[in-house]
Amino acid sequence: MKTQQHTEPKEIILTGDRATGPLHLGHYVGSLKQRVALQSICEQNILVADMQGLTDNAHNPNKVSSNILNVVADYLAVGIDPSQTTICLQSQLPALAELTMFYSNLVTIARLERNPTVKSEIQSKGIERSLPAGFLTYPISQAADITAFNATLVPVGDDQLPMLEQTNEIVRKLNSLAGKTVLKECKPLLSNASRLPSTDGKNKMSKTMGNAINLGASEKEISAAVKSMYTDPNHLRVEDPGRVEGNVVFTYLDAFHPDSSYVAELKEQYQRGGLGDGTTKKILEECLQDMLRPIREKRAMYLDDKAQLIDILAAGSHVSRAKTAQVLFDVKGVFGLNIL
Amino acid sequence: MKTQQHTEPKEIILTGDRATGPLHLGHYVGSLKQRVALQSICEQNILVADMQGLTDNAHNPNKVSSNILNVVADYLAVGIDPSQTTICLQSQLPALAELTMFYSNLVTIARLERNPTVKSEIQSKGIERSLPAGFLTYPISQAADITAFNATLVPVGDDQLPMLEQTNEIVRKLNSLAGKTVLKECKPLLSNASRLPSTDGKNKMSKTMGNAINLGASEKEISAAVKSMYTDPNHLRVEDPGRVEGNVVFTYLDAFHPDSSYVAELKEQYQRGGLGDGTTKKILEECLQDMLRPIREKRAMYLDDKAQLIDILAAGSHVSRAKTAQVLFDVKGVFGLNIL
Repeated sequence: MKTQQHTEPKEIILTGDRATGPLHLGHYVGSLKQRVALQSICEQNILVADMQGLTDNAHNPNKVSSNILNVVADYLAVGIDPSQTTICLQSQLPALAELTMFYSNLVTIARLERNPTVKSEIQSKGIERSLPAGFLTYPISQAADITAFNATLVPVGDDQLPMLEQTNEIVRKLNSLAGKTVLKECKPLLSNASRLPSTDGKNKMSKTMGNAINLGASEKEISAAVKSMYTDPNHLRVEDPGRVEGNVVFTYLDAFHPDSSYVAELKEQYQRGGLGDGTTKKILEECLQDMLRPIREKRAMYLDDKAQLIDILAAGSHVSRAKTAQVLFDVKGVFGLNIL
Repeated sequence: MKTQQHTEPKEIILTGDRATGPLHLGHYVGSLKQRVALQSICEQNILVADMQGLTDNAHNPNKVSSNILNVVADYLAVGIDPSQTTICLQSQLPALAELTMFYSNLVTIARLERNPTVKSEIQSKGIERSLPAGFLTYPISQAADITAFNATLVPVGDDQLPMLEQTNEIVRKLNSLAGKTVLKECKPLLSNASRLPSTDGKNKMSKTMGNAINLGASEKEISAAVKSMYTDPNHLRVEDPGRVEGNVVFTYLDAFHPDSSYVAELKEQYQRGGLGDGTTKKILEECLQDMLRPIREKRAMYLDDKAQLIDILAAGSHVSRAKTAQVLFDVKGVFGLNIL
């Protein structure tokens, strides 16, 4: 038994976002908050996924390119610190594309077509008939992203677990081909936060549906979003008892109000009757306004200095280029291709 | 009308070989001879396709890696001159993988599945059930190769025409997305040489079938190959009339004997009767021995100095890295991704 090994190596995290729109409160609850907490204890890499954003937006590339710096500003505004977290741009890392090419030979089309996440995304986007090759193969590209950073921990929702299974399958195939451990398997980091509902309580949050509150939302937008929030459709008069479950205002109060015992009191009163939606919405709005004001201001400040954002992204990409090139070198070694 | 334009720009050729085995007489007749002739009048690029070789050999990568320098030695031995032709290694050019990623978003899976060349290769390799993603998508990767070199002329056989169609489809899609000409369409350069039959007259030439004469074949191997050649199975006695059509010895004499009127005389005599297969084979063997002796010697000399081969491949890859990076830059521009 080794007795000298006192310090555990830091977990290496790879995470990121498709650059297809500004980030919203759903991202904040689901991942951004966690990233801020993890950045001091893990080696955290965040990939701004422009290439993956293009897999279903190639005919509208502006949707991707115009959002890259927005996403970086969102990160910085919520407290992700580029001195602790490496923020990089996917298209700046050629090793990711090269690894994707190598891994493509280890995964069958039949296997890709069985991926439940891809299946349901194909359905929800209605692209069965015109499925771009890049969309079917994006789990391979994700495996390239994860392994290129030697990531040991990947924050995901339940619905993304098949992606990690695919990654680890590729890792095992490559290691078996090499006859030694070249790549490490990764573990999921499941968020304990439940998914934040959209303001209409119906759908997944999306910018185009107008049912999400963006991190950069103006005071007016926040106000309007809260006013339109789905509550309890049977709670018609203030004095009636109301339902808290499925009531988006309370879900948001749970997620964002700093005083949980106060929220508990409000819930009791609401369920008993005598608390109107106007009041609960006012309380939520105040809380969201307070929380989002500094984020909005910082975000605007960062977006006012695009050169700085570009510098941050360039510096992170530079560091990541070296890291990922090393993994590519190791993988090329397995195929005997480091001859030049 | 422009009157000052006196000099046509040189055609840019992209061609290459999968590095999955040594080259043979079929390659010589079908492409290598043409390359030697074209290198002084065109800008010729030859890609040693190791990445594409892996699309159906990932589980036996040594088949690819061990053949890279063999293929380069074959090129030099037949007279391809690295001062006139750029010889480069596919895996050394990250822009090819990156372009493949971009183009993957412009091609549907349905379109790839309709590709007749890929279809028949899938069938002949018996990999319907376990089709690697990289194999289905390799026409996209070929489009990346061709466009990355701005190739205007691509030497192909009839069976490869669907590959160029796919490439030009991608070119048109990208140009339409850009609203201007970013990539050029390419034209096929169809070889006027008909396909050289295998020595057994039955199958496509292949190293594993033992029915091809490699450029590096020893004197003994050449002798044995000619002796076993398929002739006219009904030509039993020397004095019998024999058939020239489908008689591999005569097909090879047509392809390789320097004196075509002498070959015409032999054919007449054979058809009349009175010329034995032993004699025709002896004539062919002498001709092939004369032709292959200097090629074999040069090939061995080059393979004796692997450092030189590596230098040549590294130099060609270096030049090509710059060329292909420029095209990648232009394509990234179409997607608005040259922001760093």
